[in-house]
Amino acid sequence: MNEIRVNFERLRDDVQSLSRIGQQEDQGIHRMAFSEGDLEGRRWFRSRAEAAGLEVYEDGAANLHARLDWDGKRPAVMMGSHLDTVPGGGPLDGALGVLVGLEVMRTISEAGVKLRHPLEVVDFTDEEGRFGGLFGSQAIAGQLTPAIIHNAHDLDGVTLTEAMAAWGLDANAALFARRSPESIHAYLELHIEQGPVLDRNNVSIGVVDAITGLFKWDVRLMGQTNHAGTTPMDMRADSFQGLAEFSGEITRILEEHGSPHSRATIGRVELKPGAANTIPGQTSFSLDVRDTDAETLKNLSDAFRRTLSALARRRDLMFEFDVLSEIPPMRCDPGLVQLLTETADRLGLEHLRMPSGAAHDAQIMGSVTRTGMIFVPSIEGKSHSASEWTPWEDIEKGANLALQAILQLAAADAGVTIKEQPAKRKKA
Amino acid sequence: MNEIRVNFERLRDDVQSLSRIGQQEDQGIHRMAFSEGDLEGRRWFRSRAEAAGLEVYEDGAANLHARLDWDGKRPAVMMGSHLDTVPGGGPLDGALGVLVGLEVMRTISEAGVKLRHPLEVVDFTDEEGRFGGLFGSQAIAGQLTPAIIHNAHDLDGVTLTEAMAAWGLDANAALFARRSPESIHAYLELHIEQGPVLDRNNVSIGVVDAITGLFKWDVRLMGQTNHAGTTPMDMRADSFQGLAEFSGEITRILEEHGSPHSRATIGRVELKPGAANTIPGQTSFSLDVRDTDAETLKNLSDAFRRTLSALARRRDLMFEFDVLSEIPPMRCDPGLVQLLTETADRLGLEHLRMPSGAAHDAQIMGSVTRTGMIFVPSIEGKSHSASEWTPWEDIEKGANLALQAILQLAAADAGVTIKEQPAKRKKA
Repeated sequence: MNEIRVNFERLRDDVQSLSRIGQQEDQGIHRMAFSEGDLEGRRWFRSRAEAAGLEVYEDGAANLHARLDWDGKRPAVMMGSHLDTVPGGGPLDGALGVLVGLEVMRTISEAGVKLRHPLEVVDFTDEEGRFGGLFGSQAIAGQLTPAIIHNAHDLDGVTLTEAMAAWGLDANAALFARRSPESIHAYLELHIEQGPVLDRNNVSIGVVDAITGLFKWDVRLMGQTNHAGTTPMDMRADSFQGLAEFSGEITRILEEHGSPHSRATIGRVELKPGAANTIPGQTSFSLDVRDTDAETLKNLSDAFRRTLSALARRRDLMFEFDVLSEIPPMRCDPGLVQLLTETADRLGLEHLRMPSGAAHDAQIMGSVTRTGMIFVPSIEGKSHSASEWTPWEDIEKGANLALQAILQLAAADAGVTIKEQPAKRKKA
Repeated sequence: MNEIRVNFERLRDDVQSLSRIGQQEDQGIHRMAFSEGDLEGRRWFRSRAEAAGLEVYEDGAANLHARLDWDGKRPAVMMGSHLDTVPGGGPLDGALGVLVGLEVMRTISEAGVKLRHPLEVVDFTDEEGRFGGLFGSQAIAGQLTPAIIHNAHDLDGVTLTEAMAAWGLDANAALFARRSPESIHAYLELHIEQGPVLDRNNVSIGVVDAITGLFKWDVRLMGQTNHAGTTPMDMRADSFQGLAEFSGEITRILEEHGSPHSRATIGRVELKPGAANTIPGQTSFSLDVRDTDAETLKNLSDAFRRTLSALARRRDLMFEFDVLSEIPPMRCDPGLVQLLTETADRLGLEHLRMPSGAAHDAQIMGSVTRTGMIFVPSIEGKSHSASEWTPWEDIEKGANLALQAILQLAAADAGVTIKEQPAKRKKA
């Protein structure tokens, strides 16, 4: 096995160059999908890839594919992530995965490695969700419909169709971006953790074994609006006290029905009428619950519903909820997890096996092909912010791990081949 | 003692006539201070009082005084409440006390009762708070300053000075509305309870023994804003979970440090950033705590502060709070409480001795003279709403109790005189 290494200075220069695109003074990076910044970022990426002698292909969903040794026949080993950002985002979320993929391909190309599988790195369109999120990977996975494309719009009411037309693109062409499972041998994504686990444990590498699924509810508790001064404590039907009791049960419910990976968050709360001297007749709130196991999520959903229902009855409150979203968890391919673990060991990189709590393009790609993910630390767990950062030495370690894993997957003389299993995987 | 009774039909007609002034279809009554509706209500009241042969005096704060047997020398027995309403208010909050006072004076006048003290009933200006609340009674109690008058404004930025000038009134003249304690023998106010206690207990009369004081805090808990998916439960500093725990302690704190009259309410809650997938880094909320005893309020304040401080430390949150208001409790005059209780017994009226949880002009008048209050039931505890109501038979009972109490206080041949004690009372 070739113990070649990435050109770290070149990768660092790319990260720095790209981070200036869409940068707004002290306001972070603005490269939302199909914004000026996004388009400039794409042009920059295309020129960097072409300068490295890679072939660049833009599919119907505006995903950019930089390709090496492409012949349109052999299944490709794909890397990818996204160059778009949230408004005021940081320099690494998404971008790092694309740039590491580019650097891995440049390194392999320069080393003259003979490939069993062609390589490609994809910049996926609108991962961050100006128009809903994960658009590019959904297109490749064949999960889009004409209705989804037609209805997609941003917070200002601009439709995806309009936004793409402004750049000369036809949104409906996204339907043709679908890739057959046979055309992809494996998918590997490097991403910042966006959480505090690696940073707090002082570990450079996370080997992701699953991406959490979630359910998100909009819950309403309804009691009686009354005067805070004239209504005795035992004659109240205080909707907020219902929520407070419910919140106090979260730890118990996770302990009884969850796993160590379970998370539950109340992030939005609204009281009506919302005046200091008035007992709130209505409290609405969001409940966001995540786990890596579908069965566990189901048990948690049942437990949260039972708890809400019982306390509402006891407190003389009405209770109703809407399911805002439900995303099944995705298990990473065990062969890829093993490959990444063994490769990290061989390179002497300390690593943690861990779930991803955030959604990624990898979650979608997992429905098409065997999928793996590498995490690098987020300092203080920060992301979606100008202060998002990862130490350069960890970036270098992550990039070299990706390089070695890709070599194992794609090089003609690879010492390890992962077990061939049906490429089309069921969602976990 | 004359067992005369009020003319209930006339009182009922007055309630119904007045309720049509400021009425907006299905939207309740709009007689906010110095609005068209308020001015029309005042004109109506003046003409009703004059038609009954009462002398009407408007003081510098625009309080209307309807007077009987006035000589400017003997201290008056004063009744009062307010004709202004909240936006979309009901027909009884405030109005009933003024109309009962008017009916009591008409009845006494018609019966030719010889009076030891002149009588007056006052319609206090802006009790409900378009410009801050309790303006008229504060003027009479001498609690206003030029700065208070100058700064008073409504939610639209209209100043009190402008609003009064529009009706040809000089706001600064409110400073001259002050009444000496020697000019008032006693103050009695009848008001709807605005709470559910009388209604739930099926009792017609409440004899108020104290008006609760309160403190109102604006509290902020600050933790760490983080991703709901990527941040493990044990690495969170979730500001809302801090509030949830605090809310769960309210019952314990009231039981340990409060009285049966203690009330604590969280009526306003705001989470930042307030997104379903984000652990809220900041939670701000209102805490409204009331009791009839100043010492108890102090103990509750200490206990709430200790609890917040301890849980913030334990949960790695910062905590700060502003005191939005602090109003000391007011004890009703024991002699008046006894007079009302004995009179109700004599009239065969079932009654409860109870505190007022809401603020009233009586609370201000308590700093000037001996003060008593009569409550009549609020159906389902409702007020500040078009559905606010009190059964007619309870209104009649309350009015006759007020009549008999006023006769005891003011009639030359009254069988009972209340103990003469210093008229100027310290706030409890």
